[in-house]
Amino acid sequence: MAERIEFYFDFSSPYSYFAHFTVDALATELGWTCDWKPMMIGAAFKASGNKPLIQQPIKGEYSAHDWKRLARLMNVPWVLPDPFPISTLAAARAFYWLADRDPVRAKELARACFIAYFGQGRDITTAETVADLAAPLGVSRHDLLAAVQDPAVKERVRQETDRAIERGVFGAPFFFVDGEPFFGNDRLGMVREWVKRGGW
Amino acid sequence: MAERIEFYFDFSSPYSYFAHFTVDALATELGWTCDWKPMMIGAAFKASGNKPLIQQPIKGEYSAHDWKRLARLMNVPWVLPDPFPISTLAAARAFYWLADRDPVRAKELARACFIAYFGQGRDITTAETVADLAAPLGVSRHDLLAAVQDPAVKERVRQETDRAIERGVFGAPFFFVDGEPFFGNDRLGMVREWVKRGGW
Repeated sequence: MAERIEFYFDFSSPYSYFAHFTVDALATELGWTCDWKPMMIGAAFKASGNKPLIQQPIKGEYSAHDWKRLARLMNVPWVLPDPFPISTLAAARAFYWLADRDPVRAKELARACFIAYFGQGRDITTAETVADLAAPLGVSRHDLLAAVQDPAVKERVRQETDRAIERGVFGAPFFFVDGEPFFGNDRLGMVREWVKRGGW
Repeated sequence: MAERIEFYFDFSSPYSYFAHFTVDALATELGWTCDWKPMMIGAAFKASGNKPLIQQPIKGEYSAHDWKRLARLMNVPWVLPDPFPISTLAAARAFYWLADRDPVRAKELARACFIAYFGQGRDITTAETVADLAAPLGVSRHDLLAAVQDPAVKERVRQETDRAIERGVFGAPFFFVDGEPFFGNDRLGMVREWVKRGGW
């Protein structure tokens, strides 16, 4: 049995941004690995009748306050980007294309996308911007820009998103531990307990 | 300055049920007090465009799973009651009426209501049932049944609910620490940090 935490996220999800800083360290602490799975959270929202926090009256204002507070607590950079939320198709496609070739570098690209968007407020919608972020990692701009137009790569993101929704993902971040579902950055402590105890 | 945690909840809110077991112990640990403030969460849902978890596709199923899992982790009784959710007007009115006379006993009544509903699956909608739960605590059935019909007591619950919504409460449980808002049972750890550090 693969001892791995599956980490579903969208590059445009604030609580996914916060989770991405710590989820690999948690897996390492537990002697497990962590699979990163970007997806299109908008499709999951549609299936579950949900919508982005920022678009919800009152709860949206609380969330914006909470993101700033959480960033200070974690000592990580934070800006509420404009535009927000955005389509993260290009970043997700680039991630899966790279992950099949070099999984370590794919996570580096994912980190670069998260930091650019939520740490610096840089719009990462376009493939060109994603290619700019990938270049310092030694990823060919030409290959990346071709990859995000590749029908097989496009299909991969659709499939990962469909699979996530089939498994019950309705928001992000969302974690699976041997099939057990955990929703939200706040539940990483419970993920730790679940792995340590082998469930309860 | 009053060093107190304000605990807004609805007797029909599962995560409020889980929070009620530990929030007073947290306050005691910190040398603070805890004010319990039942409210009509349906009114807050209306203001924020939210609705009960159990009525949300996919997220509702996850929540039902999570409640069972959390109850096992905390070693507390749990049943998903039927009917659920319910109107908790009678319980909230009885609580505030009693709290003005005997705050300690009011919390005991609140605990009895929570355990009856989520621990035993007993419908606590009617004033008669709330009076049954209050009787073993030495509260006169006659006085309680009169109190929940008292216009001043009815107005009190309306005012507490309106005030909560004005303060940005959109779900339950919801905590305030010297005005700082925290949403959800999962945030009690952050409440502890906030009090210990005096904010950050």
